[in-house]
Amino acid sequence: MDRSSIGSQGLFIAFEGLDGCGKTTQAKLLIQYLLQRNIPHRHVREPGGTEVGDKIRQLLLSPETRLNTWGEAMLYATARAQLVQDVISPSLAKGEVVVCDRYLFSSLAYQGYGLGLDVELVRTINMKAVGGLIPHISFLLDIPVETWSQRQSSKQHLDRIERRDADYYQRVRDGYQKLAREHGLVVLNGQHSEQKLYSQILEKIEAYIKGGRYN
Amino acid sequence: MDRSSIGSQGLFIAFEGLDGCGKTTQAKLLIQYLLQRNIPHRHVREPGGTEVGDKIRQLLLSPETRLNTWGEAMLYATARAQLVQDVISPSLAKGEVVVCDRYLFSSLAYQGYGLGLDVELVRTINMKAVGGLIPHISFLLDIPVETWSQRQSSKQHLDRIERRDADYYQRVRDGYQKLAREHGLVVLNGQHSEQKLYSQILEKIEAYIKGGRYN
Repeated sequence: MDRSSIGSQGLFIAFEGLDGCGKTTQAKLLIQYLLQRNIPHRHVREPGGTEVGDKIRQLLLSPETRLNTWGEAMLYATARAQLVQDVISPSLAKGEVVVCDRYLFSSLAYQGYGLGLDVELVRTINMKAVGGLIPHISFLLDIPVETWSQRQSSKQHLDRIERRDADYYQRVRDGYQKLAREHGLVVLNGQHSEQKLYSQILEKIEAYIKGGRYN
Repeated sequence: MDRSSIGSQGLFIAFEGLDGCGKTTQAKLLIQYLLQRNIPHRHVREPGGTEVGDKIRQLLLSPETRLNTWGEAMLYATARAQLVQDVISPSLAKGEVVVCDRYLFSSLAYQGYGLGLDVELVRTINMKAVGGLIPHISFLLDIPVETWSQRQSSKQHLDRIERRDADYYQRVRDGYQKLAREHGLVVLNGQHSEQKLYSQILEKIEAYIKGGRYN
């Protein structure tokens, strides 16, 4: 991948998966790669990345927030709408690579499948919120719930979502796998080493660029 | 109206209309009436009335908040969902009279028609958010945009929504009138005197109770 291989519409890459699946690490490794090659890019994390989004993030993640399930889905979509409008779309319009730690499929997996909401309606409001913008590549770093559980247990503080139980996370994982089949997410085994995952991710991005599927 | 005339499912009354139409005054007069008759009741105002709702209210009304149109619609729906779950539904379940200063039709008029969003989708997400709960009676205190403009001009501080222009408020008013025709809102002339409006409102509520349409 080099600067000239990124088309004029930019390249939008999202990392998805359970907490502790390694997506934050992989997003950072990819950012380093882009930095080293002087490829213009933007690194964003959901929810947040805008003024209103950061306030919504506090509400969503604070264990003190009392929020019903449908409200939770709408707050994520609201933060996402603003992030797309203010950050992601302008960045793509400049031909940059946008690396997003979580995006729309998180809402379908966590709120749709996890909380048992109407997945189609969650999709509809999110697609409306982002003006139909979906990533060129979404990576799903898949881990079993047991691995999620082990990795979470080392954390000192768990946020409102992380406090949910293994049954919830099983529904989220199953939901992600279903979404991957339906929407062509690139599924990688999150139990592999960081280095192996990193190679696989770069390989997939290279193949995507060479395939010319976005231009 | 007396305590025994309110059914076991309570009575849910909403006041709707442009800012300055007199709904807040009428809601307060109705609350006084209920107090005098010792009728159990709850007075709520949108957006807000819950911890998360009050925080969302700050975001929505602060002139500093940068928020896209669809996000605005979702934030109102989120605050409403929590208000229904935590306050309105429990109050109705106790057989109380709930008096609400703005409710779901405000979103359809202000965000749907006013901002030019897909009104059906705004309705769908709101109906989902409130579990299908709509007021037994919704009063629309109708005023022309000229009256709105005169009444607003005396205000020292205008919030983010109040700062919108007359064209916006014309769409909101037209939207409200359309909604009134489609959904049977009780339309009253907001240019009438407080006392006249108050009499008309009590009369309509009495007629509604006697008609036994909610029991």
